[in-house]
Amino acid sequence: MKIALDAMGGDYAPREILRGAVLAKRALDVELILVGRRGEIERELHEIETNDMYGLPDFEIVDAPDVIEFDQNPSSVKERRGASIRVICELVKHKQADACLTMGHTGAGIIASLITFGRLGDVLRPCVGITYFNLQPETLLVDAGAMVDCKPEYLVQFAKMGSIYMEKIHGIERPSVGLMVNGREDNKGNEFTRTVFALLKNSGLNFFGNIEGYDLPNGAVNVVVMDGLWGNVVLKLSEGLSEQLLSRLTKRFAEAGMSHAVHPILNEFHVMMDYTRIGAIPVFGVDGLMLIGHGRSNAAAVVGGIKSTLQALQVDLLGALRAGLTEPDVA
Amino acid sequence: MKIALDAMGGDYAPREILRGAVLAKRALDVELILVGRRGEIERELHEIETNDMYGLPDFEIVDAPDVIEFDQNPSSVKERRGASIRVICELVKHKQADACLTMGHTGAGIIASLITFGRLGDVLRPCVGITYFNLQPETLLVDAGAMVDCKPEYLVQFAKMGSIYMEKIHGIERPSVGLMVNGREDNKGNEFTRTVFALLKNSGLNFFGNIEGYDLPNGAVNVVVMDGLWGNVVLKLSEGLSEQLLSRLTKRFAEAGMSHAVHPILNEFHVMMDYTRIGAIPVFGVDGLMLIGHGRSNAAAVVGGIKSTLQALQVDLLGALRAGLTEPDVA
Repeated sequence: MKIALDAMGGDYAPREILRGAVLAKRALDVELILVGRRGEIERELHEIETNDMYGLPDFEIVDAPDVIEFDQNPSSVKERRGASIRVICELVKHKQADACLTMGHTGAGIIASLITFGRLGDVLRPCVGITYFNLQPETLLVDAGAMVDCKPEYLVQFAKMGSIYMEKIHGIERPSVGLMVNGREDNKGNEFTRTVFALLKNSGLNFFGNIEGYDLPNGAVNVVVMDGLWGNVVLKLSEGLSEQLLSRLTKRFAEAGMSHAVHPILNEFHVMMDYTRIGAIPVFGVDGLMLIGHGRSNAAAVVGGIKSTLQALQVDLLGALRAGLTEPDVA
Repeated sequence: MKIALDAMGGDYAPREILRGAVLAKRALDVELILVGRRGEIERELHEIETNDMYGLPDFEIVDAPDVIEFDQNPSSVKERRGASIRVICELVKHKQADACLTMGHTGAGIIASLITFGRLGDVLRPCVGITYFNLQPETLLVDAGAMVDCKPEYLVQFAKMGSIYMEKIHGIERPSVGLMVNGREDNKGNEFTRTVFALLKNSGLNFFGNIEGYDLPNGAVNVVVMDGLWGNVVLKLSEGLSEQLLSRLTKRFAEAGMSHAVHPILNEFHVMMDYTRIGAIPVFGVDGLMLIGHGRSNAAAVVGGIKSTLQALQVDLLGALRAGLTEPDVA
């Protein structure tokens, strides 16, 4: 299996991406193509080699002179053909790699994959799904931020793709799907969500019904569907709240002279709520396999992302999505 | 100051409401009218008197034969003129009380206040605002769940009423206002929020701009504006996540044999994240003063709700809202 890795994407690129590539190459059965500014990549690899007792594994390097930074307009990827996040997609399209992986700009990654691969089957819009930390690893939130202006039909497809992902990657049979609104009763929600509700009810999916805010941290269903604007808000809110609570707890325990005693347990929770630990997530709804990892990924997180990519290839996630999206609905 | 208190509203009504009324009457300079089924109220008061060493303070009782339960359709309050939540509003309307307070059904309370008092000035829709726990007591979330189908203009009024509340009740001069979307940049959000953004920019409010999920737990602004559907989701998600984290922490510390040592600090956080501790919140945008407390209120929480109501009367919140909503915008 060959993966095109964006060496330039991420807060700690290229160093941590390349360190991760070295670790992954030693631990996993995978071929990696490093994509980015050749000079920088070679310089970093040389640096790693100098400080490494094992010597470097073999990598193919593909030059990409441009990088989309996090503060840049993701749409600019349409014109910037030399951007590493675009070149990794081209390598997949031209069958020089089986899948691609970036820790770079999520929005740019989605657009790059969409314009390079095209849409998958009847998909109206692509999206991304992410499990609710390791707090609820069997609950996927979709859309996690790709599409902010949604039509009801999009959300039904998001739910369908999320269900296939949870089945294939997490081994959950007939994943339950919940629609996030302001209460569990059927008549809750607004005009938009009531239309989505009716469509989901007839979708053939294992539709649980409306769910409310408590149900996400409680893991009430396997797939939580909402539009990408609110998916983004919900994720950042959850990250921010848990960080706020854990950092205040750390401070209060320190004031009480208990830092040392409580550290291992508080650290467990930091790890549990750390999105860099859950690997990388695929773009759903494009006709090629691209995974996107957390921007703050260090070398270990890059290894995790490569594992996620290998797993998606092993279970043929793309094939399952394609089949699931074109098969007639079971009503 | 005279407050009409819904003796029947709340999970622990009428007992805890009446216990709270007794405590409040002793501690605060307030007259209370107890509204509900006279027989039940008198029986409970007698019970309290029997077990109380101080003897009962004087209360006026107004009979209301009906109660809107939490699982009932809030709109039914329109026909149910004898419902306690409706009668407390009538008492205010007919100047037999200065304000009213319920721990009952929020939706029914909003409708009851709207049909009894009418809208305040040019207000298009009423809403409710609630501070972000005692985690960020200077950050108000509005709308917290009253209006699920919103037009952009509603959100601007919500922001304005929230600002007046934070100024009057929390003493914050020119409260900062943030619009919740998927990132801080001006071009973030969807079609709906971009319209709200443009309106807020010209509203004369101290508009910070777009904010994102992290900014609510971090207390980045004083007034966080969003529609009521997502306000409800955000609040329940925050409650659910903090409960989930604190209960798992409690369990892990117990397993490590540290329950006793960590209890006081974990309890601080339970208290900080407990909505029954922040008193009651006013319905914004109706031409009369109604406050709504948490459904799970115990006697102490009822005292808190009565304090909130007194404070709203003391600072003439209603007058400030009326003046703020009719004064010409300073652009």
